[in-house]
Amino acid sequence: MKFSKFGQKFTKDSAILQLMDDLGDALNSDKPVNMLGGGNPASIPELNAVYQQTLKSVVANALALDSVGNYSNPQGDAKFIATLVEFFNRHYDWQLTSENIVLTNGSQNAFFYLFNLFAGKFDDGTDKSILLPLAPEYVGYADVHIDGVHFVAVPPSIELVSHEGQEGFFKYRVDFDVLENLEELKNGKIGAICCSRPTNPTGNVLTDDEMARLTAISKKYSVPLIVDNAYGMPFPNIIYTDTTLSWDDDTVLCFSLSKVGLPGTRTGIIVANKNVVKTISNMNAIVNLSPVRFGATVATPLFANDEIKTLSDTVIQPFYQTQARLAVKLLQENFANYPVKIHKPEGAIFLWVWFENLPISTTELYQILKQQGTLIIPSEHFFVGVETANYPHARECIRLSIAQDDETITKGITTIGEVVRKLYDGA
Amino acid sequence: MKFSKFGQKFTKDSAILQLMDDLGDALNSDKPVNMLGGGNPASIPELNAVYQQTLKSVVANALALDSVGNYSNPQGDAKFIATLVEFFNRHYDWQLTSENIVLTNGSQNAFFYLFNLFAGKFDDGTDKSILLPLAPEYVGYADVHIDGVHFVAVPPSIELVSHEGQEGFFKYRVDFDVLENLEELKNGKIGAICCSRPTNPTGNVLTDDEMARLTAISKKYSVPLIVDNAYGMPFPNIIYTDTTLSWDDDTVLCFSLSKVGLPGTRTGIIVANKNVVKTISNMNAIVNLSPVRFGATVATPLFANDEIKTLSDTVIQPFYQTQARLAVKLLQENFANYPVKIHKPEGAIFLWVWFENLPISTTELYQILKQQGTLIIPSEHFFVGVETANYPHARECIRLSIAQDDETITKGITTIGEVVRKLYDGA
Repeated sequence: MKFSKFGQKFTKDSAILQLMDDLGDALNSDKPVNMLGGGNPASIPELNAVYQQTLKSVVANALALDSVGNYSNPQGDAKFIATLVEFFNRHYDWQLTSENIVLTNGSQNAFFYLFNLFAGKFDDGTDKSILLPLAPEYVGYADVHIDGVHFVAVPPSIELVSHEGQEGFFKYRVDFDVLENLEELKNGKIGAICCSRPTNPTGNVLTDDEMARLTAISKKYSVPLIVDNAYGMPFPNIIYTDTTLSWDDDTVLCFSLSKVGLPGTRTGIIVANKNVVKTISNMNAIVNLSPVRFGATVATPLFANDEIKTLSDTVIQPFYQTQARLAVKLLQENFANYPVKIHKPEGAIFLWVWFENLPISTTELYQILKQQGTLIIPSEHFFVGVETANYPHARECIRLSIAQDDETITKGITTIGEVVRKLYDGA
Repeated sequence: MKFSKFGQKFTKDSAILQLMDDLGDALNSDKPVNMLGGGNPASIPELNAVYQQTLKSVVANALALDSVGNYSNPQGDAKFIATLVEFFNRHYDWQLTSENIVLTNGSQNAFFYLFNLFAGKFDDGTDKSILLPLAPEYVGYADVHIDGVHFVAVPPSIELVSHEGQEGFFKYRVDFDVLENLEELKNGKIGAICCSRPTNPTGNVLTDDEMARLTAISKKYSVPLIVDNAYGMPFPNIIYTDTTLSWDDDTVLCFSLSKVGLPGTRTGIIVANKNVVKTISNMNAIVNLSPVRFGATVATPLFANDEIKTLSDTVIQPFYQTQARLAVKLLQENFANYPVKIHKPEGAIFLWVWFENLPISTTELYQILKQQGTLIIPSEHFFVGVETANYPHARECIRLSIAQDDETITKGITTIGEVVRKLYDGA
């Protein structure tokens, strides 16, 4: 039984697949685990109560039965799309129609479509890449291309900043000097520009000014700007900086129901021009026949009356901000006299911690911490599209989930403190 | 905004995409429609009552909330997989473990994975195809390859047969003389053999003898035999012939929850050897992060206590058999003195009707019938992998859904009768 070249891509020891296996094995072991490694959103009682009530209601009024019992068309559940059009037009001046929205089986599925639509081999003989203007970026992007690797990424400028009046923080900035002079842009080797905002893994939020400059570059070179808004406004709105959200025909905005607490429904939402929407609908038809409906069924009433926005503003955002503050405080206590810096927490459900000049790589640190029952994600794999061999910073950071309860965060960071201080002290 | 070669595949006027659009437009028009064109399963009140009760129950015991609120791992919902292992081992001697089952976002998604895993470009420089031993086959297979078209199909032998004591029927048989001497098999150009059983679109069921010969060919050439069991036993069990279901490490069995009445949940089930299961799990991780969970949540209790099997045997199978008999009777009444033959209804939710020597193609007939408010699917696109230019039979058949109520089936076939008789009479 032989596999094609495409198939073999999925048998190789892909770093991210190994890591996922590794995390899975650790979770299935008998030892107690401080799970600061995953991407699952928090279980928030107030939110769960609303979803439980909504589930009861869509079962009682037979919408759930209708949802499980019928295919949607390939574009996705028509009623949810109509509700989303009204929702976005109520809060933004985008003037969307139903031809501007297509649903996917989660965000990952959306990026599988989009990155293969805008990168790879083109009819004019070029081989184009996705430009990530600010590495590190979401590790899930790394392997989605059907053939080869098609990423160009620009490592960040690192700026030391204060946060809520305190020092010990840094913020990644787009290195526009490099970006605006990039050979690949001038040579037509870029098919699209993509950024997550807030960024998974760092919690960075690109400023409105940075977004405006990225938009200008995308228009100059006639390539779309794809914005992964999985943590952004207006839902789940896990974002603490003062920013705005823009859309036009050259922008592809990707939303998700995962971080409002519905990851099991696998519901991604793409807002784009009609041509992109029609093409992604066709991809749905061929790859999946039609997207899954149940997430749409649960979400529709909550988008229709704006409850999802209220929950995002009053429950989801405050929860993660509180956990971020707890984690920051614990890290500061553990590393008061060590060269450890935290990326300014501006959003998302992670903290990104930089262990400058750590004597070992954070991939090795990950293994040690796993032995001690604490799971984190090492930084190197997040530098998608970056040649990391001569870039030590790429091996000096970790991603910590803050979606856990106080006890787990406290125990986990305490363990990290003990291990890392020893490493620094012994060096 | 330019699209890659891969992306352009989804903007082309693919026959199946056009047809789907066309059906969608017809359904959205104001005119009443006799929908004999789609693939949606029937809405059966007795079945709906069970699903409604199950939905209430999984909401009440908070399993639904847990399902929507958490990712599964990339292999799929672990509890459903464990339940399926027990279910299959209870009814068959396959001795499965949890490493033999992976879930996908519906059957179409499974075939996107499998056909790209076993066909396309290989490391040894060959370009391999999926062998369809009996065309016509499921039209949804046609466009799934990520690059090019990779199908080899063998047109059927046509045998005139009786059905429930009556004449006017035919049955497709695998042409083993052609198949066993196929150059592509001998030259290593085949990566896997695939058949649907019962077959969409024809309702044909490959006999146990035919399956044994296909198994022998697959083992001789060391390629897997993929069986699309979406309509087969033990669920939904829409199959009226006396057959058995086999599995071993060289077989890939594909199941679906769609035809038990849960198509909106997009839940596909692959039973295969551990290596295939691990690779498909990795494909899930990269393409979808993890498969959707809600179908698994609803189905788990019904598989645990075998209720799904009881429903299949006592509700689903009798429903479709009754509708098939009604449609056969109506077709016989409408075409008593015409050269119209029906493929022996052995299973699935369709009838396949052959209008021998019809003066126009059934693609043209489809257009005329659409104007009259009756939707069917013309045959040509189902001959996946067959060069149809010099093969008139490929343009002389239609697929009729029998998943509709008596009135729709009666009105639809009456219209088809009026239109087709005129065509024959005028010739």
